[in-house]
Amino acid sequence: MAAKFVIAQGGGPTAVINQTVVGAALEIRRRHPGAKVLGSRHGVRGIRDGDYVDLSEIPEEQLRLVGATPGAALGSTRDKPDAAYCDLVLAGLKKEGADAFIYIGGNDTSGTQQILTDASGGSIAFVHAPKTIDNDLMENDHTPGFISAGEFVAGAFLSVDLDFRALPGVYVGIVMGRHAGFLTASAAAWRADEDSGPHLVYVPERAFSVPRFIDDVRATLDRHKRCIVAVSEGVTTEDGRAVVESLVPPDRLERDAHGNIKLSGSDLNMAFERALAEGLPGKRARVDALGYLPRGYVGAINSTDSSEAFEAGVFAVEVAARGGGSVALKHEGGKTVMRQVPLDAVAGKTRHMPDDFMQPDANQLSDTGMAYLKRLVPAKYQVGKPFV
Amino acid sequence: MAAKFVIAQGGGPTAVINQTVVGAALEIRRRHPGAKVLGSRHGVRGIRDGDYVDLSEIPEEQLRLVGATPGAALGSTRDKPDAAYCDLVLAGLKKEGADAFIYIGGNDTSGTQQILTDASGGSIAFVHAPKTIDNDLMENDHTPGFISAGEFVAGAFLSVDLDFRALPGVYVGIVMGRHAGFLTASAAAWRADEDSGPHLVYVPERAFSVPRFIDDVRATLDRHKRCIVAVSEGVTTEDGRAVVESLVPPDRLERDAHGNIKLSGSDLNMAFERALAEGLPGKRARVDALGYLPRGYVGAINSTDSSEAFEAGVFAVEVAARGGGSVALKHEGGKTVMRQVPLDAVAGKTRHMPDDFMQPDANQLSDTGMAYLKRLVPAKYQVGKPFV
Repeated sequence: MAAKFVIAQGGGPTAVINQTVVGAALEIRRRHPGAKVLGSRHGVRGIRDGDYVDLSEIPEEQLRLVGATPGAALGSTRDKPDAAYCDLVLAGLKKEGADAFIYIGGNDTSGTQQILTDASGGSIAFVHAPKTIDNDLMENDHTPGFISAGEFVAGAFLSVDLDFRALPGVYVGIVMGRHAGFLTASAAAWRADEDSGPHLVYVPERAFSVPRFIDDVRATLDRHKRCIVAVSEGVTTEDGRAVVESLVPPDRLERDAHGNIKLSGSDLNMAFERALAEGLPGKRARVDALGYLPRGYVGAINSTDSSEAFEAGVFAVEVAARGGGSVALKHEGGKTVMRQVPLDAVAGKTRHMPDDFMQPDANQLSDTGMAYLKRLVPAKYQVGKPFV
Repeated sequence: MAAKFVIAQGGGPTAVINQTVVGAALEIRRRHPGAKVLGSRHGVRGIRDGDYVDLSEIPEEQLRLVGATPGAALGSTRDKPDAAYCDLVLAGLKKEGADAFIYIGGNDTSGTQQILTDASGGSIAFVHAPKTIDNDLMENDHTPGFISAGEFVAGAFLSVDLDFRALPGVYVGIVMGRHAGFLTASAAAWRADEDSGPHLVYVPERAFSVPRFIDDVRATLDRHKRCIVAVSEGVTTEDGRAVVESLVPPDRLERDAHGNIKLSGSDLNMAFERALAEGLPGKRARVDALGYLPRGYVGAINSTDSSEAFEAGVFAVEVAARGGGSVALKHEGGKTVMRQVPLDAVAGKTRHMPDDFMQPDANQLSDTGMAYLKRLVPAKYQVGKPFV
């Protein structure tokens, strides 16, 4: 009987996650002629519900066009299956007679594959292919999706800095990334010199202090007449509380149905607006969240990122042949190579930005951090120096 | 004595306003060898304060690089000079012995030139060169800066729509434009079909109703499982009040030092978040402002926009030779041409989006509106159709 593969996508979409689907589908076509490749819609939910698209039937040209398109073409899910849910997924895979399941996503996705591996008894190869703009997967030098997102963020801050040179003031740009600061740090990737923004970079790896923040902004304004700030939505204060809790009076905090405080969205924007209005009264200030644009802006798809995401899909098929595991992107001999690592080396863990990526005494990237960013997110545009 | 020109930039920066400076500077170099070209820093403020950069001294190559850079390289200003301020500007120009003053900006900028013309007694040629992402200048088919901004917005909504196909919910993207809906409407420029977002477009030219908005979103969710909304920051309710006044309780409205209600920023985001949370409880919803990115994102500089902005600068020198006036971009014989129009045909007036650009009974572009957008902001990226 011909081999049968199931592929799914989990977590937030990215600019290049579709390349991984297409890389895997075409590699299966090449290595296993006649094999069936089912795309499960909306992650494991499609397996549970028997909702598939038959990728083996789709012409290569059409697949490649989808690969070049941002988003998650199979649909995605935020479901984190527990043991009972995993039993349903396993039953679904067995019903289809699947030989391998390639699941593309972050550390939660890897965790799902670990649970399924443990529960399956070895009849199916479970493969995790990496994807996350947060760049927070253990064992990886960087992850597919990060470079494109980093490029968008670098370009956004370069652009806003030029805007604020013309009309000075304070700008705070809130960047995705709950636990790892890589994407927020990439705001600094295209800084030309000390005068260029972002002048201040706040990452979740460092405790955030509101008074220190106001002092930092004031000092920057004194020196550069404007202040461009990149801040991660995940920054927390010394006591581990979300920064929104320090900035918004308790009775005005927005809570969800479970009583949990909302950490992102307009509350965080408004909290920063109020902190600036109180700390630096009368100063022109603008707070914006970059929102979802970094993870899939059609105009910032990096070609290295695209081809690495495609290769991660290709190598996932090799890992399936070896019985399962996680695909990891390593930096070896000056280039990116695909390696197999155990699922449990990635599952449920978070890779934080190394402490030495930041300057010890300032909220700015260190030379080490800049070297990493410049390797992955090299400058793309030549800009002229303004006359002000 | 050699001719002397002063050039300045006013209002919000754009992706291409520097092309207009460079177009004018190089045309002056060509037509008036030996002429002096002073760039005034931060608009008329530089003339008032005697703060200039000598553009005649800058090599063409360097000028062209600045031209290709977003922002406003001479710096800009929000100052709207009254008669007394204009007297100081006029005195500044006379002190320099200026023969012509080319001021690049929107309708306020044109208004300043009108006041200066009236006050000057005819010794200096006052020229307005058009610039605004709002596309709201009378006499113009479109304005330099709009196409690039429109391209960014079109790409942003295409991208967010792909994101929400993967993880369904409601997205509201708030777009700049206080009085004219062109830029918000450009969110729809790259819609592929009826299923594509943005599904709802709200422009300042039409009264906004919160209950109607919730009904529209609910109907869209029923039909498409997701709802992508483009809304102008300038939308007002039937009674002419800012929409934030309908959505935020009076005691929680943010006011500035003059008691004026803040119309944009986080308040508006939060107002939409709350309206959705109340009107469609439990629905995943995200509200983001695109903020300043449309007006100068380094990755969305449209080449037609660039060359038209350059040509507007070139033609401004011709208008100076004719004694002054405003440069207007007309659409004639299938192409964009530069024409001279009187300053008072543009000054202080707002060109609204024509009513027939919108469908009569739906918050969506009409065929007429789409034809205009597709002419100016043609599709740039080929995307594959997702499998969900």
